[in-house]
Amino acid sequence: MTNKKTIRVGILGASGYTGAELIRLLCRHPDVEIVLLTADRHAGLPVSDVFPHLFGLGLPNLIKIDEVEWHGVEADIIFCALPHGTTQEIVAGLLHHTGHDVIDELITERREDLIAGIPDGVRVIDLSADFRLENVDTYAQWYGHAHRAPQLQAEAVYGLTEFARDDIRDARLVACPGCYPTSALLPLIPLIGAGQIDADDIIIDAKSGVTGAGRAAKEASLFGEVSEGIHAYGVAGHRHGPEIEQGLAQAAGRDILVNFTPHLVPMNRGILSTIYVRLEGGATAADLHETLSKRYAAEPFVDVVPEGVSPATRHVRGSNHSLLGVFPDRVKGRAIILSVLDNLVKGASGQAVQNMNVMCGLPETLSLEQRPLFP
Amino acid sequence: MTNKKTIRVGILGASGYTGAELIRLLCRHPDVEIVLLTADRHAGLPVSDVFPHLFGLGLPNLIKIDEVEWHGVEADIIFCALPHGTTQEIVAGLLHHTGHDVIDELITERREDLIAGIPDGVRVIDLSADFRLENVDTYAQWYGHAHRAPQLQAEAVYGLTEFARDDIRDARLVACPGCYPTSALLPLIPLIGAGQIDADDIIIDAKSGVTGAGRAAKEASLFGEVSEGIHAYGVAGHRHGPEIEQGLAQAAGRDILVNFTPHLVPMNRGILSTIYVRLEGGATAADLHETLSKRYAAEPFVDVVPEGVSPATRHVRGSNHSLLGVFPDRVKGRAIILSVLDNLVKGASGQAVQNMNVMCGLPETLSLEQRPLFP
Amino acid sequence: MTNKKTIRVGILGASGYTGAELIRLLCRHPDVEIVLLTADRHAGLPVSDVFPHLFGLGLPNLIKIDEVEWHGVEADIIFCALPHGTTQEIVAGLLHHTGHDVIDELITERREDLIAGIPDGVRVIDLSADFRLENVDTYAQWYGHAHRAPQLQAEAVYGLTEFARDDIRDARLVACPGCYPTSALLPLIPLIGAGQIDADDIIIDAKSGVTGAGRAAKEASLFGEVSEGIHAYGVAGHRHGPEIEQGLAQAAGRDILVNFTPHLVPMNRGILSTIYVRLEGGATAADLHETLSKRYAAEPFVDVVPEGVSPATRHVRGSNHSLLGVFPDRVKGRAIILSVLDNLVKGASGQAVQNMNVMCGLPETLSLEQRPLFP
Amino acid sequence: MTNKKTIRVGILGASGYTGAELIRLLCRHPDVEIVLLTADRHAGLPVSDVFPHLFGLGLPNLIKIDEVEWHGVEADIIFCALPHGTTQEIVAGLLHHTGHDVIDELITERREDLIAGIPDGVRVIDLSADFRLENVDTYAQWYGHAHRAPQLQAEAVYGLTEFARDDIRDARLVACPGCYPTSALLPLIPLIGAGQIDADDIIIDAKSGVTGAGRAAKEASLFGEVSEGIHAYGVAGHRHGPEIEQGLAQAAGRDILVNFTPHLVPMNRGILSTIYVRLEGGATAADLHETLSKRYAAEPFVDVVPEGVSPATRHVRGSNHSLLGVFPDRVKGRAIILSVLDNLVKGASGQAVQNMNVMCGLPETLSLEQRPLFP
Repeated sequence: MTNKKTIRVGILGASGYTGAELIRLLCRHPDVEIVLLTADRHAGLPVSDVFPHLFGLGLPNLIKIDEVEWHGVEADIIFCALPHGTTQEIVAGLLHHTGHDVIDELITERREDLIAGIPDGVRVIDLSADFRLENVDTYAQWYGHAHRAPQLQAEAVYGLTEFARDDIRDARLVACPGCYPTSALLPLIPLIGAGQIDADDIIIDAKSGVTGAGRAAKEASLFGEVSEGIHAYGVAGHRHGPEIEQGLAQAAGRDILVNFTPHLVPMNRGILSTIYVRLEGGATAADLHETLSKRYAAEPFVDVVPEGVSPATRHVRGSNHSLLGVFPDRVKGRAIILSVLDNLVKGASGQAVQNMNVMCGLPETLSLEQRPLFP
Repeated sequence: MTNKKTIRVGILGASGYTGAELIRLLCRHPDVEIVLLTADRHAGLPVSDVFPHLFGLGLPNLIKIDEVEWHGVEADIIFCALPHGTTQEIVAGLLHHTGHDVIDELITERREDLIAGIPDGVRVIDLSADFRLENVDTYAQWYGHAHRAPQLQAEAVYGLTEFARDDIRDARLVACPGCYPTSALLPLIPLIGAGQIDADDIIIDAKSGVTGAGRAAKEASLFGEVSEGIHAYGVAGHRHGPEIEQGLAQAAGRDILVNFTPHLVPMNRGILSTIYVRLEGGATAADLHETLSKRYAAEPFVDVVPEGVSPATRHVRGSNHSLLGVFPDRVKGRAIILSVLDNLVKGASGQAVQNMNVMCGLPETLSLEQRPLFP
Repeated sequence: MTNKKTIRVGILGASGYTGAELIRLLCRHPDVEIVLLTADRHAGLPVSDVFPHLFGLGLPNLIKIDEVEWHGVEADIIFCALPHGTTQEIVAGLLHHTGHDVIDELITERREDLIAGIPDGVRVIDLSADFRLENVDTYAQWYGHAHRAPQLQAEAVYGLTEFARDDIRDARLVACPGCYPTSALLPLIPLIGAGQIDADDIIIDAKSGVTGAGRAAKEASLFGEVSEGIHAYGVAGHRHGPEIEQGLAQAAGRDILVNFTPHLVPMNRGILSTIYVRLEGGATAADLHETLSKRYAAEPFVDVVPEGVSPATRHVRGSNHSLLGVFPDRVKGRAIILSVLDNLVKGASGQAVQNMNVMCGLPETLSLEQRPLFP
Repeated sequence: MTNKKTIRVGILGASGYTGAELIRLLCRHPDVEIVLLTADRHAGLPVSDVFPHLFGLGLPNLIKIDEVEWHGVEADIIFCALPHGTTQEIVAGLLHHTGHDVIDELITERREDLIAGIPDGVRVIDLSADFRLENVDTYAQWYGHAHRAPQLQAEAVYGLTEFARDDIRDARLVACPGCYPTSALLPLIPLIGAGQIDADDIIIDAKSGVTGAGRAAKEASLFGEVSEGIHAYGVAGHRHGPEIEQGLAQAAGRDILVNFTPHLVPMNRGILSTIYVRLEGGATAADLHETLSKRYAAEPFVDVVPEGVSPATRHVRGSNHSLLGVFPDRVKGRAIILSVLDNLVKGASGQAVQNMNVMCGLPETLSLEQRPLFP
């Protein structure tokens, strides 16, 4: 490996769980050098003070995002692992997209000065929800404020890798899908495309591990509050609902409304989506299984388990794999689809790295080859 | 309380989790004396050797069921907490129901001699699945062998307390509902009865704690296999499916087929059933909430949470309470029902004690007043 | 039970875990009426909004402590379940102990006015660490600020029930022991008293569930941070160290220094103290077992398990019981003592209620009869 | 990488947790080909049926150990991940060590025929306890039966890599240390060697995850039995005690007896040993820290955390790293050592692979570079 091949990477928001996962994966990437790590509350500390499992990696210390000396950074790829709602203006700055009024207001003098130093060629992979919804009105409706970089939104590529490679390859800005949407869209897009299920009768009962709520200190994420129990949350009102619908609508060629009900499970990692569908056009569960098997035969990170097998989240823990299963329902004309992934990997940081590999013309599996950790 | 009122109780199968729960609850019952505890593998031991949390209660030691000297037992109520498939012949013996050919064959000489000593008035509360399905053909289909006491089946009362008090009061044999069916039937029976939901479009996505699998030493129940993950099991083939359908069919007045998909959650106790229904007759989610609120207003163990609240299994842990919630779906004409209970209490031993209280003319809440344990 | 017997109880700090446990236990007490519940952040809400498992109890809503209209409260017993460091001045106010300068400064005009209404006969049971250390200098050294009610400290009774009944009976102020100290002192005081162990060579390796850290939203208590792992904390510097030493010094009649190392275990409830001791005076492990067995033979809440049995925290979960075990070490002249309890019950709220029963001349076990919940 | 470099590996006992870990690690080793996998109960199945997380690896199916056609295997390295007590005769067969009477009796005609085909050069890495104790009398005393291959025992190398590289390099038979001994010996051997601690006053309070008990279906390992609680087991009688003492005795040059008390923690992976030592020769805790830091400065898998930092098992989860910490005790002249590792990796399969790398003259870190998985 020559120096020429090295991709210089920055991670904004490196003190959250997705930030830590990016480091964990990228530190073993043969072509990547991590040159920048920001984390506001922990600025000044070495990464291993914040994440002791990431010791001995020779990484740069954490710094405040406002104190980045962009002139010297020379990053090729910036991963944004910042909270929702804070990313639009920062990305706008990163991409010199200061023509828009809102941005101009938001960018302070000092920051403008700083970001003037960002190299023109920098590309952004955003893990937040800020650029996922193409329709900025839908964004405003679900996220409670006007979109702060609508022109960039038009340019952003929705990075569900298996369905957007061509666009990702040349994108300046990739919006990585949410964890729930990834788990729902992987099985549903091909089935809607094949006309084998009724896109108007889809129920997605999803179950997630607790890291999906991030590392913020909230009472609702305390061990005492979430261990030894299960509950639904965001019933009929979770923000990943419209994101799922956006993907399904594109597959169906028309607006789609789904039932999406997330649940919190006392485990660290993993999403299981149990999806109830009505069959169409005479399709059987076996036909669905065949459609998915064919669609994903050549994909390195999506596997269809044999008929009769129920995939478990623990069988993809820590890896970038997604497993899909199909069962016939006892009710005639219905089927049950099971989809599992690790919310921090294929549902977030792993898919982000997969997209980076696509953007850089590298084999997609680089630094993502690790097998699941079980038990 | 005088000695006269004392109910003498025996528990067959006291070394399983439901047996231990019966002891935990009954040892605080003011009118109950535990006079008999059987457990084949652990025969000869004090209960506290098998369940150290049940120390210091002055209980009889465990004995083999075949070695019970029934003449001296003088029990009023026998709880059967035995594995499925072993209970029919034992209950037949307990109830002197030896006229049936199959039973006559099964009952050995020694056992016949022993059970001759069982007092005529003994009554049986069965926690297994052996007497739950009224149709013995359905039983044979799902449990893999012919019913061994079909005449008793005709007499057995399905003990969903809130719907069968009158029959339970005088029953000789009460079949306690399964944990999943209890959690599904409590909300669904009133709603079908009110004509507010389509009984042909019901999806029950259920999540259970690990104690639902009992205390048998199975690889699939090891900590390493079930912690830190979730998976569906028995997809479209779980035996509680036909039991749920039996209850719904009675409410609807016709045969019903449901989708019922159970999942295993890394927690000890609790069931959450997330139920997806289609509204009928112009009903709204608010109407469903009202129907359930009215139906259960006077019930001590079923509570309907306020609209917008999502009930959690940890909020009923260790108690006999069931909590029901209703949400409108974003999809027009649909609603989501959430039902939680503790599978070992309202889903098994607690409901069994509740039924005993009914059978003995006692306040239903006796020895079931304990609040949930949280965290 | 007549109205006359009713004890009117207030709980300050009812939105934490120990507050919730007090409610759970007291709501079943035949002689107690809860008349006051304070919780600053959640003021105005019903308890069931903060603790959904405490529904349907007909309790007063939560109010701010500063807004209590003490004139109308007429409480007999006030439980203080407030954070460490905030309790001294509040208790001083409750007990009209305003002669002390520091208190006089601290008590604002409005509060002074309010607490003027507190009935003279009110008695306080404090669950915080604020009144546990008799030596106010030791307090200042470990808690970082001068004691704010040193005169009251002189009056406070250290409420390890089994060793202080006579003083507790007439106390105005009982300081309930910490969870770790309770688990260490129960076995060690009698053994030091009997001269069977060397008080200068005691190592206490303690393991606690996560609720010991309270319900405050801290990163360190998040599910993701504490599940699936174990670590020591406060090594050689935990504040319960001097509290343990105070109790041991009283038993030994001289100053004692111990090694006390707490660990955080991924479970909600429970403390296990594994205590390594050197035998003295020719004593054997069997002698220790006998000493403890005799000492606790008549105690309702301390049980010594048979020799060779290892007590587990899960066997006291949710109950006020403590279990003690003794093993001979392979190293000659040494023994291992195992002590378990539920940190929220015997380690906090249960012992507080036990003390209330003593203070009110009631049977000690009232409302504490519940068996452990297992699994 | 040329074919020449390929190491052909067999794994006996591939359906247990350590077997699965060997596969997980080795499947990414650039120089290894897995040519043989045995598992008696699951013979005939693909690995992914037994361990669904190991899908898509193109591995040979599982076969019974008695049905291996050794003539065709041509393995260079055989890993034995079989239960304790079954390995001695099998290893004797593998190494053509049939001169011993006991072995001759044990090896059946068919097996003798088969193992005749084993290539002369095969080398064995044993993960069981069968060859760890040099003194066969100690083995017999603790394992309940005479050693079945005492001549091989004399040849076996105790594979604590950091202390036995030279012997491991040329060994035919390496006995990998137990998980607890690895965690205790790594810090204690250098400190005893430096004369800084009293080898006669060592207390090892160890805490392990549940996978340490293996994948056997035992009631004691059920989720319901081990979650939400902690307990000590094998108090003063665990078989890893003499193994630890053997290592310490070699460091001290005389017999040593330690207190070793293991505890079961509700987590999948990880061991934390909290070790209480008495300082000698005027050493301080800082001296201990320095001794360990120097000793392990060049070791890739042993790290000494900064003073004041408490290492956690979750910070080495899934990796081959061990972390060591040192704290001064408040009791003068004493210190506390904290040692963590993943029991399935550095405590078993990872160290086995590390030893294989040494045996084959490869960089020790090959296929062990993966970072810990957190959360």
